[in-house]
Amino acid sequence: MTNGTGPQAALRRRNLSAVLHAVATGDKSRAAVAAEVGLTRATVSTLVDDLIAAGLVTELGAQRPGTVGRPGTALALSARGPAGIGAEVGVDHLAACVVDLRGTVRARATVEARNRGRAAARTLGELEELVRQVTEEAVALGLRPAGLTVAVPGLVGRDQHTVLRAPNLGWKDERTTLTVENEANLGALAELWLSGGRDTASDNAADAPAARTPLTDFIHVSAEIGIGAALVVNGGLFRGARGFAGELGHVPVYPDGPRCSCGARGCLEQYAGEEAVLRAAGIAPELPGRLKALRTAAADDDARALAALEAAGRALGIALSGAVNLLDPQAVVLGGPLSELAPWLLPGVRRELGERVTGGGALVVESRLGRDGVLLGAAYSAIRAVLDDPSEWTTR
Amino acid sequence: MTNGTGPQAALRRRNLSAVLHAVATGDKSRAAVAAEVGLTRATVSTLVDDLIAAGLVTELGAQRPGTVGRPGTALALSARGPAGIGAEVGVDHLAACVVDLRGTVRARATVEARNRGRAAARTLGELEELVRQVTEEAVALGLRPAGLTVAVPGLVGRDQHTVLRAPNLGWKDERTTLTVENEANLGALAELWLSGGRDTASDNAADAPAARTPLTDFIHVSAEIGIGAALVVNGGLFRGARGFAGELGHVPVYPDGPRCSCGARGCLEQYAGEEAVLRAAGIAPELPGRLKALRTAAADDDARALAALEAAGRALGIALSGAVNLLDPQAVVLGGPLSELAPWLLPGVRRELGERVTGGGALVVESRLGRDGVLLGAAYSAIRAVLDDPSEWTTR
Repeated sequence: MTNGTGPQAALRRRNLSAVLHAVATGDKSRAAVAAEVGLTRATVSTLVDDLIAAGLVTELGAQRPGTVGRPGTALALSARGPAGIGAEVGVDHLAACVVDLRGTVRARATVEARNRGRAAARTLGELEELVRQVTEEAVALGLRPAGLTVAVPGLVGRDQHTVLRAPNLGWKDERTTLTVENEANLGALAELWLSGGRDTASDNAADAPAARTPLTDFIHVSAEIGIGAALVVNGGLFRGARGFAGELGHVPVYPDGPRCSCGARGCLEQYAGEEAVLRAAGIAPELPGRLKALRTAAADDDARALAALEAAGRALGIALSGAVNLLDPQAVVLGGPLSELAPWLLPGVRRELGERVTGGGALVVESRLGRDGVLLGAAYSAIRAVLDDPSEWTTR
Repeated sequence: MTNGTGPQAALRRRNLSAVLHAVATGDKSRAAVAAEVGLTRATVSTLVDDLIAAGLVTELGAQRPGTVGRPGTALALSARGPAGIGAEVGVDHLAACVVDLRGTVRARATVEARNRGRAAARTLGELEELVRQVTEEAVALGLRPAGLTVAVPGLVGRDQHTVLRAPNLGWKDERTTLTVENEANLGALAELWLSGGRDTASDNAADAPAARTPLTDFIHVSAEIGIGAALVVNGGLFRGARGFAGELGHVPVYPDGPRCSCGARGCLEQYAGEEAVLRAAGIAPELPGRLKALRTAAADDDARALAALEAAGRALGIALSGAVNLLDPQAVVLGGPLSELAPWLLPGVRRELGERVTGGGALVVESRLGRDGVLLGAAYSAIRAVLDDPSEWTTR
């Protein structure tokens, strides 16, 4: 093993990572990788051999077999290499999944659970059982576990082992040996890593499609019970001075409005949070499958459901107008369970942004990852760590 | 001259800059500089000699003359080196000033001018005359002009030579050969560079004073006619995807409120913009010295003035609550002419932040630079460029 700490080792780590990232962005030959990363073919070939030996990269067979000379062999990320494990604590479900280096889900499990008010230790114990189950499945498929991240609906401490508060679970200052992360942050990271870019040229479907560019600066809004948001700036999460950034749910919308659980008045959560919307739509917030009931009612043109979603969309648009005026992002992305309500929320959101944003509106898109974004982001966190430093997985 | 582009030249530039920044943060000996930047005393001595020869650094004479051995000679930035020139286009004034490497103002001129609706070329022509005047004064003092930045109350293009729009001047897409920058951005940079840090431990004057730490993440709010804000993140300006970040003035406060000049309803500017506050206070917005009149009325406990400022402070606090919930900064800084109204604005701002910010309030401070911040920031921009790369000023 020469995975040392000197400048040579650091250079090797950087080069291995550059090669692996080049392979990750599309199957390509060693020559194409060398051209992309700016290293000699000989250097790249050695690094590729190491990555193949480590089981991170595979050869797909000859590309363009009709060409003269030694055919370029296409390289791809291995489907049997390191595996990222993600888990999710929802208010009434637990989930776990495993993704491979390619970001493909290889194992997955979800159970219903009444986590509101239940002791954190019991909830996490049940979650660990689920994690054990998907990990065993992944190992049986030839994958090697590379790390676990648990998504929680609450504020997480900088140590990533403390849930400072998760009011919808009733958690406060819960410490765990597991690595935890805020669910809105993971949803945003999934969008950053896995969405495959956006047409940022226009928000108008009637316009000609433009080239897809990766979004690197956006506001990601999600919701389960509360409203969560995360800011992605320069291709990374923006966490703020204390790690509290992205609290869109408590941006004032109507400053003299109803009292919020946070103590203030008229927060966005009082208009667009799940509980507020369900109540306005006449659906019991405790009902299992309540969001599906809301979607069904809206699809059936139920007047109360439509009015509730219209008001929520408007409130979301008002709060986001302030956010966009402050941050000037490339786009606003609706993700998580909220994305399933997008058809009814988007008109109000777009109207408010169009009227209130300096420079004329903002691009608003639905996440393609939908409700799965959070869990995928949790699982893919470990994969990103491998792509950023594969040297721990190579044998020299 | 060896100011080349190779790795040696880049290393020299970095080292020169590191030494100059070390001298800038307090007079110290060569040995102290070497310890701070982590270079050998011999290397530092050579670099210091170059900086002295270039007129950027001076020796203050022996430190601690009673000690044994060769006394350490204290180094300081030169008061006769490069000079930064700043200029400011206000709605009814023009200003220019010169600062030296130490950030001290060495020449300054202000004239009243009716710039609203006047052709940009005429306004900038008059400004250049003012710049010429202060530059001549500075040259007579032995200073060498290092660059000019013009502060404007409007959106500036990425090229820094186009004022996209400055509604209070009536400018739209004005191109100029001068380097222009948004006034709110310059006010924020002045706070970042020149304020000398803040006690971030507590917002309560009754508490024991803590160590001063430099603010690197804050929202800087200023105002002349409109409300301007700038975001400082990680010790740098946060400009947003299109350069429009910081539009606090158009964050919705009461979404169904009065129509704003931007076309939307209930923007912060309609409650806390100078014109709105003056109107509410019963002071003609066209009156010369109107802000002074407002301050005087408030100091005299005039009921209308106090109510106007109370409402403005509340609206500012509501908009800032949203901003703080999104960005989680170390502090909010009130700067520019707004800082002169701080005694009457702050109570409302602090009350709203205390009620509405997740995690309990935010540190709110007045800028020590007051109304001068913008002009100082413009002038000091050129000085920062010299500190960051002094190699152009050295002779080898």
